[in-house]
Amino acid sequence: MADFNRRDFMTAATLVGAGTMVFGAAAAAERYPAIRKAAEAGRDAAIKRIQDWIALPSIAAENRSMKEGAEYMATLAREAGFDTATIVPTDGHPGVFATMDNGAKRTLALYFMYDVKQFDPAEWSSPPLEGRIVDKPGFGRAIVGRGAVNQKGPEATVLAALHAMRAAKAKFPVNLVLVAEGEEEIGSPHFHQIVQRPEVFAALKKAEGIFIPASWQDMNGNVSVNLGSKGVIELELVASGEKWGRGPKGDIHSSQKAAVDSPVWRLVRALDSLVTPDGNTPAIDGWFENVRALTPREKELIAEVARSGSEQEQKKQLGVSHWIDDLPYGQALERLASQPTVNIEGLVSGYTGPGGKTILPGRAVAKLDLRLVPNQTSKEAVSKLRAHLDKRGFNDVEVNVSGGYDPTETAEDSRIIRAELETYKRAGVKASLNPRLAGSWPGAVFTAPPLSLPAGHFGLGHGAGAHAPNEYYVVESTNPKVAGITDAVMGYVDMFHQIAQVR
Amino acid sequence: MADFNRRDFMTAATLVGAGTMVFGAAAAAERYPAIRKAAEAGRDAAIKRIQDWIALPSIAAENRSMKEGAEYMATLAREAGFDTATIVPTDGHPGVFATMDNGAKRTLALYFMYDVKQFDPAEWSSPPLEGRIVDKPGFGRAIVGRGAVNQKGPEATVLAALHAMRAAKAKFPVNLVLVAEGEEEIGSPHFHQIVQRPEVFAALKKAEGIFIPASWQDMNGNVSVNLGSKGVIELELVASGEKWGRGPKGDIHSSQKAAVDSPVWRLVRALDSLVTPDGNTPAIDGWFENVRALTPREKELIAEVARSGSEQEQKKQLGVSHWIDDLPYGQALERLASQPTVNIEGLVSGYTGPGGKTILPGRAVAKLDLRLVPNQTSKEAVSKLRAHLDKRGFNDVEVNVSGGYDPTETAEDSRIIRAELETYKRAGVKASLNPRLAGSWPGAVFTAPPLSLPAGHFGLGHGAGAHAPNEYYVVESTNPKVAGITDAVMGYVDMFHQIAQVR
Repeated sequence: MADFNRRDFMTAATLVGAGTMVFGAAAAAERYPAIRKAAEAGRDAAIKRIQDWIALPSIAAENRSMKEGAEYMATLAREAGFDTATIVPTDGHPGVFATMDNGAKRTLALYFMYDVKQFDPAEWSSPPLEGRIVDKPGFGRAIVGRGAVNQKGPEATVLAALHAMRAAKAKFPVNLVLVAEGEEEIGSPHFHQIVQRPEVFAALKKAEGIFIPASWQDMNGNVSVNLGSKGVIELELVASGEKWGRGPKGDIHSSQKAAVDSPVWRLVRALDSLVTPDGNTPAIDGWFENVRALTPREKELIAEVARSGSEQEQKKQLGVSHWIDDLPYGQALERLASQPTVNIEGLVSGYTGPGGKTILPGRAVAKLDLRLVPNQTSKEAVSKLRAHLDKRGFNDVEVNVSGGYDPTETAEDSRIIRAELETYKRAGVKASLNPRLAGSWPGAVFTAPPLSLPAGHFGLGHGAGAHAPNEYYVVESTNPKVAGITDAVMGYVDMFHQIAQVR
Repeated sequence: MADFNRRDFMTAATLVGAGTMVFGAAAAAERYPAIRKAAEAGRDAAIKRIQDWIALPSIAAENRSMKEGAEYMATLAREAGFDTATIVPTDGHPGVFATMDNGAKRTLALYFMYDVKQFDPAEWSSPPLEGRIVDKPGFGRAIVGRGAVNQKGPEATVLAALHAMRAAKAKFPVNLVLVAEGEEEIGSPHFHQIVQRPEVFAALKKAEGIFIPASWQDMNGNVSVNLGSKGVIELELVASGEKWGRGPKGDIHSSQKAAVDSPVWRLVRALDSLVTPDGNTPAIDGWFENVRALTPREKELIAEVARSGSEQEQKKQLGVSHWIDDLPYGQALERLASQPTVNIEGLVSGYTGPGGKTILPGRAVAKLDLRLVPNQTSKEAVSKLRAHLDKRGFNDVEVNVSGGYDPTETAEDSRIIRAELETYKRAGVKASLNPRLAGSWPGAVFTAPPLSLPAGHFGLGHGAGAHAPNEYYVVESTNPKVAGITDAVMGYVDMFHQIAQVR
């Protein structure tokens, strides 16, 4: 469900023009020659590991291969050298908790998911569970399959780094903790139960930070390092004759409108109260009470993005010709990072096919997502929305929340962010600091008290198509600015060392 | 498209309790013994005529068998004794114009349609083109098929009356004019072209009135005689980034909402301006300018319906527990008859499947139907809606009208209404006068100047399920209060005589 890795959001990376960078593989090879040799030797096995994993799709929404998926995840962890890897039951599907004590001073945590998004084979150019290797012009050769980039490819690349380090008999510079879940694609409803288990919590509490593997290098090799992300609540607002006690319980003939109330009009009215007349600012009572303004440093980082980015390219990609209020680019980016939103994802009521059908529908649904910024919380937001509707007499309008996360924040001076930046720099990759992703991920379970763990995304390499057909992950790069699988492996190897070394 | 015959509107008939009535077949048999004998002899042929016609579905929306359907209609007319029956081309699908000069003093016009609604055989209990005869508990045996009641069954029953009169060598008491179209189910977009042809117009101008055959006897045998109907406009309101020049042209990631305008919120705002806060009264500028209040006589007729009807039964059928503003029944019926409406038939935008999808949709559509009362016109209404939106800056919000009719009115003292009432009375059928149907039909092409032809619905018998699967038309009645096909034939025979005889 986490919706930051769809390549359709505005990140610093996509805004930055081509630099004059050569991928730093050579430098890395010099630093860890034995590990690199082992990574090269293990390349085919690493690719096969991704393909085999893709062949076992775990889909929580379909209750498909969940037990098998968790066991497979635990086995992969053990094979990569984790001392223990245990299945952690939840009220939903199980997770996996694994640790690797390397006698190191510092500990790094990893967040994995073993589930994948649903798929329809008819929409794919090759079977989604085959993991076929195909050409991707501009990038090289890539594995195509469900979960290729979200997240089996990047996760298996982390595992390949561990395999390479063991094969090279290298010293592990950090201890590792791995927490994995199988319900990410349905909104991580039970992940907090895994994190809150005493042994898991205690292990995570020792860590410097946690990252989710990511392979977001763009065509120019650039990445962005996100210092936080918005929270999100997804919900349905439902108006119905059933709950209202007025209007029809089912659909009736539209000629009745002159004598019968309409739940659809009720929904329209309730919706209209949620935002300013231009639809751009939440108007829910007390919504901005806990909203923290951007800090001067955050504004500085955004200004840097605005300076280096291509506004026209960005607008073209999005298919928009104006930002809200015709704001100049820098202010639009500030608005993007700083403002909470009330967005309508979908409207469904009555007859939705071609042409018309003269009915008065008994029920109307608006699908909303509400993005939250620090220091809003999803709990606060749901309760304010309910109170806002109740105060206006819309007590009957249902608020059916399907999922949500709080916003996340990680300090720029945390060891994990500094290690990420150092690793990218050593690899010759341009990394832009992004103060806040406008998208969301369930990282608040780590970053919020009581754990308060710095959290981020890290990785080299490239893949795309999460949730879409023909999802892919590049394993052999023909683009000198983008890492193939072995360079990506070496990126993780170096990241482990940087975590151990940063002040 | 005409949406009055779906049995889901509030008519006087459905409100009236069981009387102590016995179907007047015996009386009719005494009046026209030779014709009745011929009708009985022709009964099997009449049923086969309906079945054969059902086997040839003409569907304008699918451009299916339109030419064949028009030719079939013309042949049916000729076989029933019309002197001439010619195909009338239009800019769309053709109609049929037929006349039968019987040297009578008065002329009666008939309105037929040869097209039927689309159907999905998978939803039917027997093949929709087979016209299988099945038991309908409470009514008897019925033909099941697409078009059975809407309108091939009732129309073929009129034709069977003409066959029976010819077979009995009876004197035809009136001259007949028949106009038929093949685009009723798509909103009669070209029917006015048929009516406006000089020869058709001249023939209709001579008529006392026109009726569409109807088979709306309820369980108790009751019918209602409608003195008019509301007009209707069906349209889509569309807000899009494309037309607006703001917001996205397609769907983009919902995290962009903080920087990008939303066409969906724009639609919500535009919609909200169209009605009062309770959603019950149009708030479009100048909407009530030409609305005529109910006359004392209309109020008297409504009060009679309120007195004799069962409010609880009506509410139960509709699945509602309160009328608008908790009005008492009589006032609710007055509101139903007198008030124009702005109804939302459907809402469609963005993601409409189960769960959510974090997108900011580029387009949002509201399907509306607007019911009009005398003396509003559909032309006036469309132009006022456009002006209302433009005045509020919604120039980009599209108003895509797919069809519409003006309201119709026929005087209670017109010969056709008086002949209908007399015919029902002679058949022992309780007929309630309904001043205005809340539904709509394309009768304004007849009732409005320059033709100004009284128009109504007439017929005995029963059928239901127009537009739905398993549409049926009763041919053999086991309910003594409801006409089977032969009694329905005799109803038309008597109606022809009453038209000739009423003062």
